[in-house]
Amino acid sequence: MRRSSTVPHPHTIQEFAFIEGLHRRFGKTGRGVVLGIGDDAALLRVSPGEDFVATTDLLVEGVHFTLTTASYEDVGYKAAAANISDIAAMGGRPQYLLVSIAIGPAHGRSQLHGLYRGIMTACRPHGIQLVGGDTSASRRDLFLNVTLTGSVARGKALRRDGARPGDLVYVTGTLGDSLAGLCLLAKRPPRLRGGPQLVSSLIARHLRPSPRVEIGRALSTRGLATAGIDLSDGLSGDLVHLCRQSRVGAEIDIEALPVSAALETYAQRLGADPADLARQGGEDYELLFTVTPRNAARISSLARAATCRITRIGVIQPKSAGMRVRDRAGRLRPWKNVSYEHFRN
Amino acid sequence: MRRSSTVPHPHTIQEFAFIEGLHRRFGKTGRGVVLGIGDDAALLRVSPGEDFVATTDLLVEGVHFTLTTASYEDVGYKAAAANISDIAAMGGRPQYLLVSIAIGPAHGRSQLHGLYRGIMTACRPHGIQLVGGDTSASRRDLFLNVTLTGSVARGKALRRDGARPGDLVYVTGTLGDSLAGLCLLAKRPPRLRGGPQLVSSLIARHLRPSPRVEIGRALSTRGLATAGIDLSDGLSGDLVHLCRQSRVGAEIDIEALPVSAALETYAQRLGADPADLARQGGEDYELLFTVTPRNAARISSLARAATCRITRIGVIQPKSAGMRVRDRAGRLRPWKNVSYEHFRN
Repeated sequence: MRRSSTVPHPHTIQEFAFIEGLHRRFGKTGRGVVLGIGDDAALLRVSPGEDFVATTDLLVEGVHFTLTTASYEDVGYKAAAANISDIAAMGGRPQYLLVSIAIGPAHGRSQLHGLYRGIMTACRPHGIQLVGGDTSASRRDLFLNVTLTGSVARGKALRRDGARPGDLVYVTGTLGDSLAGLCLLAKRPPRLRGGPQLVSSLIARHLRPSPRVEIGRALSTRGLATAGIDLSDGLSGDLVHLCRQSRVGAEIDIEALPVSAALETYAQRLGADPADLARQGGEDYELLFTVTPRNAARISSLARAATCRITRIGVIQPKSAGMRVRDRAGRLRPWKNVSYEHFRN
Repeated sequence: MRRSSTVPHPHTIQEFAFIEGLHRRFGKTGRGVVLGIGDDAALLRVSPGEDFVATTDLLVEGVHFTLTTASYEDVGYKAAAANISDIAAMGGRPQYLLVSIAIGPAHGRSQLHGLYRGIMTACRPHGIQLVGGDTSASRRDLFLNVTLTGSVARGKALRRDGARPGDLVYVTGTLGDSLAGLCLLAKRPPRLRGGPQLVSSLIARHLRPSPRVEIGRALSTRGLATAGIDLSDGLSGDLVHLCRQSRVGAEIDIEALPVSAALETYAQRLGADPADLARQGGEDYELLFTVTPRNAARISSLARAATCRITRIGVIQPKSAGMRVRDRAGRLRPWKNVSYEHFRN
């Protein structure tokens, strides 16, 4: 933890002290943390037989978010949630958080407080502890970098490269809601049957995603999945990542893609196919994973106990078969990468 | 590793692919890395009996550096070096690096290449491996966040809170050079006796500091130091941090502060006392540590084998004695926190 700055804004010197106060407030630590905030580095204990997982995400004002449509609390929440989802996709237990923040002259105390409140709202259910960070001025934009570390039993991580032909393909939750929420935030909300509640449920899915930590850990500890990835870019692109790293193809059934009632209504209003939104949409932070057929019954049993849906959407094929989608008429077509990033351009 | 961006610059889409290429190029990993770049999170092995250390540093264009006086390579080097120094100050072995970068429209491929080259120049001598990161556009400024993790034998970390009255106070290397280098970069270099070589040696100390990893590890593994901190803010402030966390006072001998011949010449030119610059200067990335008197001989022996000076500068006192400095006339005066950040305002 350091706070050095050669050209600080006059007001941010006080803000730094304020952030350090927040770090002290939110940085109370317990089990596993030998030293948290306040020394040169955090000192953390790893249990024997566990590997260490680490991920980092950078959110930039005007690029990943605008403060006209998201609150500071939303921004903090989502930065943390994106990292938690990465650890979930490894089948890991998220544990230790480091937060770097650069604040422009427009950002004041109550906003920063909101940012940290959002971060901790995402972290608290998982027992994640804030153990370090860095603070700086910025000439204009707000920058938030979150690094999250955790642990996973040795040899049990859900990697991207383990899918084999014949494996069944599953996703958690519903897809496309976050994209619909983003569109609703960016434009004037269209009048939807189902009214404000439907709109707010889609927007909540965009601003406050729920990383699937419990499901990822269950898949990992019970050895149920052959590969896993989280859906941050969108099913369309993330399935390509998983297949490429596993050197396999896939066949996905478009009718099987799980969509929420809210997304169906939204798509109907747009005259779009909800399955297209489900395929294209990014930032759902659901898990995509593959399972050998002999474990299908154990996945059904996991699904019955889970707090969200788990849906089978297809099957892994040999690489030579390529990646294909079965449309509503039963025809097989090539899988197109129309993921989030590309969709937005 | 994710690259999501809702409002990318047209040119940076290609830059993202380029950075991913750099990650692949510099992200070749070996021992201890189960999974590096390319999965949802890095998967790392911690040896039995070791704790995990983690630190993060954020560098912001226009705040921590300007690209008029530092090259991209310098910026990358220093971001990594600052983190390495934090791990050194814990007595740890630096191991795994995560790099987040946000690039504005003004930054092109060769600049980014320089940035990574600088990062790896600082990392390579220590065997540090690049295992992850994130990449984003920025509307204007360049942001670079580096997270570094490492390991230290359990119970052996150099904490800030272990100094006791009677302990001797030591620093590595020489102090104040980095501040002089910064002043030389910021203004027109004054004409110095000793000429360009002297100027460039001070500037090099500012742009390319040498973190004291070997000395930190020797202190830790041999159990020689009771407390340690790295000098990032400056001796003046960092000694206060150490004393506050150890709940002790200190008495420092101003004449003992180690200064380079270059700094002496520079100070003479300014009409300043080099010891004042040594006390105020930040970003030297030397180590400050405390040692029980019975280990003094072992420190002398360590110093003889070290590649930099190790100098005794004072003694720890009870808290009630406060923090004092003995001036050249032998008078004890109160220690003032005139560290880097305050000096620059």
